[in-house]
Amino acid sequence: MSGPNYDPRTHELITYHDAVAKFSDGSDTPRDYLERCLERIDAIENEVMAWEILNRDAAREAAEEAGARYKAGAPLSLVDGMPIGIKDLIETVDMPTEYGSELFKGHQPIRDAASVNALRKGGAVIIGKTVTVTFGGGDPARTRNPHDTSRTPGGSSSGTAAAVGGGTIPGALGTHARGSTIRPASFCGSYALKATFGALNRQGVFSAAQSMDHLGIFGGDLSDVWIMSRHISKHGGGDPGYPGLHGADRPPAPRRPARLIRLETAGWDQTDDATKATFEDFIGSLTDKGVEIFGRADDPSIEAYEQVFADMPELWRSLYRFEFQWPMLQYKERYPDQIPPRLLMGLKEAEGLSQAEYREALNRRVRIRDLHRQLALRADAFITLSSPGPGPVGMDQGSAVFNEGSSVVGMPSLSLPLLSVDNVPVGIQILGQFDEDERLTAVGRWLAEEHFGR
Amino acid sequence: MSGPNYDPRTHELITYHDAVAKFSDGSDTPRDYLERCLERIDAIENEVMAWEILNRDAAREAAEEAGARYKAGAPLSLVDGMPIGIKDLIETVDMPTEYGSELFKGHQPIRDAASVNALRKGGAVIIGKTVTVTFGGGDPARTRNPHDTSRTPGGSSSGTAAAVGGGTIPGALGTHARGSTIRPASFCGSYALKATFGALNRQGVFSAAQSMDHLGIFGGDLSDVWIMSRHISKHGGGDPGYPGLHGADRPPAPRRPARLIRLETAGWDQTDDATKATFEDFIGSLTDKGVEIFGRADDPSIEAYEQVFADMPELWRSLYRFEFQWPMLQYKERYPDQIPPRLLMGLKEAEGLSQAEYREALNRRVRIRDLHRQLALRADAFITLSSPGPGPVGMDQGSAVFNEGSSVVGMPSLSLPLLSVDNVPVGIQILGQFDEDERLTAVGRWLAEEHFGR
Repeated sequence: MSGPNYDPRTHELITYHDAVAKFSDGSDTPRDYLERCLERIDAIENEVMAWEILNRDAAREAAEEAGARYKAGAPLSLVDGMPIGIKDLIETVDMPTEYGSELFKGHQPIRDAASVNALRKGGAVIIGKTVTVTFGGGDPARTRNPHDTSRTPGGSSSGTAAAVGGGTIPGALGTHARGSTIRPASFCGSYALKATFGALNRQGVFSAAQSMDHLGIFGGDLSDVWIMSRHISKHGGGDPGYPGLHGADRPPAPRRPARLIRLETAGWDQTDDATKATFEDFIGSLTDKGVEIFGRADDPSIEAYEQVFADMPELWRSLYRFEFQWPMLQYKERYPDQIPPRLLMGLKEAEGLSQAEYREALNRRVRIRDLHRQLALRADAFITLSSPGPGPVGMDQGSAVFNEGSSVVGMPSLSLPLLSVDNVPVGIQILGQFDEDERLTAVGRWLAEEHFGR
Repeated sequence: MSGPNYDPRTHELITYHDAVAKFSDGSDTPRDYLERCLERIDAIENEVMAWEILNRDAAREAAEEAGARYKAGAPLSLVDGMPIGIKDLIETVDMPTEYGSELFKGHQPIRDAASVNALRKGGAVIIGKTVTVTFGGGDPARTRNPHDTSRTPGGSSSGTAAAVGGGTIPGALGTHARGSTIRPASFCGSYALKATFGALNRQGVFSAAQSMDHLGIFGGDLSDVWIMSRHISKHGGGDPGYPGLHGADRPPAPRRPARLIRLETAGWDQTDDATKATFEDFIGSLTDKGVEIFGRADDPSIEAYEQVFADMPELWRSLYRFEFQWPMLQYKERYPDQIPPRLLMGLKEAEGLSQAEYREALNRRVRIRDLHRQLALRADAFITLSSPGPGPVGMDQGSAVFNEGSSVVGMPSLSLPLLSVDNVPVGIQILGQFDEDERLTAVGRWLAEEHFGR
């Protein structure tokens, strides 16, 4: 594992899409690829604790089967043979799904979540279940940051982010209802996509706040992130009633943005100086490359939009508290001993919330969505931080202040592991227009390739 | 039970809201009310087979507790003490939830569905689980029509409709993704509301087609239907992300419609002559009372709207086939012997459906919703039949041709047991503007009271 001397230019993330060519010419096999992943996992798992369970035998068998298909020149899909980890809020037919909770110890679903089913049908090697915070709530999980085990990996997709960001596997699934994908991706140095709300089917996924919850797709680069995302949407659909993720099966080519809108939303004043300085350097490098950075000084409508974010924590809370009443309030009443303390506290606050308040929150969201739709027309993407700094020392999950907006509003968001602060990762976040996930990914690819000079 | 000589003017449905006064003055108790329900159930259950399970002891205990509260002058809510049956697609913490399927034999959830939880918290007596068609699909359940046991009760809320329409209990929950509420209510002579899409929380309910599925609320009159519906929305919410059912807790007063739009949509040509004649008589009686009946001859936009319904079966199918792939295709693959034949056939058709087709179906729905929104502004409600005739002889569930539209489009729909054809019930269906369920209920109350002359 990397020590606390993380440098995004040298830290090796694992990718899959570029390994496939060797499966066809016989110089590598999915089984060997899997074994290398397992070796990397075994090298750090004692300290990082990213996994709830590893299904080694089944994974090896699936990898062998994929190998035979490549040998026959007939892989099932772009994810055939790809080792993928699954956050333990997501149902798996061959492994327990415990939601990080004592209450569901040993709980064995009789089906895969729609996303897992789509990946498995495409030949993906479902390698194991990654640690989640209990019910995706506020209490820390046991997982540690792979780049500095004194720090949090973030949550609630703690194990997913640590496994991918720690360079042990090429891809994994998380979820995101507040900051649970973009935050841990930032802290652990993984690429991750929280797609447009509804674009990736959540059926079979525990959801604490259904109108804000998303699948989160983690990968070693944006090509793998895109390939997994499109595969899930194409073969598993978006959420029922939603059109699913738009775009081609293969990753979009890098796209140079003409203009980016720089956002200094809620959380900017909590951002430490070192992170701010690193961000400014990055923005400066873009300006040097001829990208127009458009900000509050350039247009009052940007500042107005930023100010909307000042209320976002409260708005997020109003939606969350109402929506997570079911089933959590029943669990609290029937099994209070099995609910961890922060979640229990949140549940106490949720009792007695009124439908009138909830409706007002929904109305506010409609207005913010309109605002976002209008502003997003004016640039290739928005750019900001994924978190107000690196993952804090200790087990606190860290702040989601840069993430609540995209959870509430539902626009697509990418975290790019391009920065290092205090020798650990911090992510650059870019956000896009609704349903323009493909364009956002193309811009993200350009930013990453330019930054790393490849 | 009623024989095959059903007359809506004399057939007795059980109501609850008007029994409550006697609980306060001590001349009746919720326990005695419950015992009368159980007696009525026991009198017909051998032939009708509406129940999967009756939880007599727990129901008696809950009724006693409600009685104590009324005695103390402190009932919990308008549903306190009300015996309510729950369709077996809906999770109950104290009774198995088997989805009518061998695959889930003995399956015991650790929570109530959001709707059941809301009712139980309000003191309702959850009396048992009513028979459902397996996974709400196309195969018949064992339940028979309480007014003529040679006929189908309709599905998939077969037991729910038979229990309420048979006059054994004052209220019950069903679901509706195609015709599963309005159709069996029509055949069994129950009042029923399929509220605006999203208005009643479906969490904890098996859903075969999530973008068209609804809770269905069955009652002995529209006051009880409304009271249950509002209670569920107020205390259990609408679906996450939806504002829930609008209106007051108590039922709206009857409202005389100035104008009703008469719809002759798909299915009109399948309607038998006796049913058509009975419907014309009913329409004539409204005209006699000064209600303007507005139809295709009066305005070409009505005929244009009716023609949209010609494609509704195909549109419904496109949405359904795509959405019920998860989890049903996995059940089919893993447990084919436990899937009944019609469902199995449907699942075979669903394989290989494309996302492009599904997106086109979603786009068509958006256009139809706009059309409905515009047209609904021009009258107090739409009026048509709930089904193209009485429940057919035999176990076939009967046609949903008059119901697919409201499933796809999501506007509110009420079935009123006002007609008798061949000595068994047929429902009058009225449909309203989105989110105007309260107004629709008020119009329904006026129609029922005028028809029965009370």
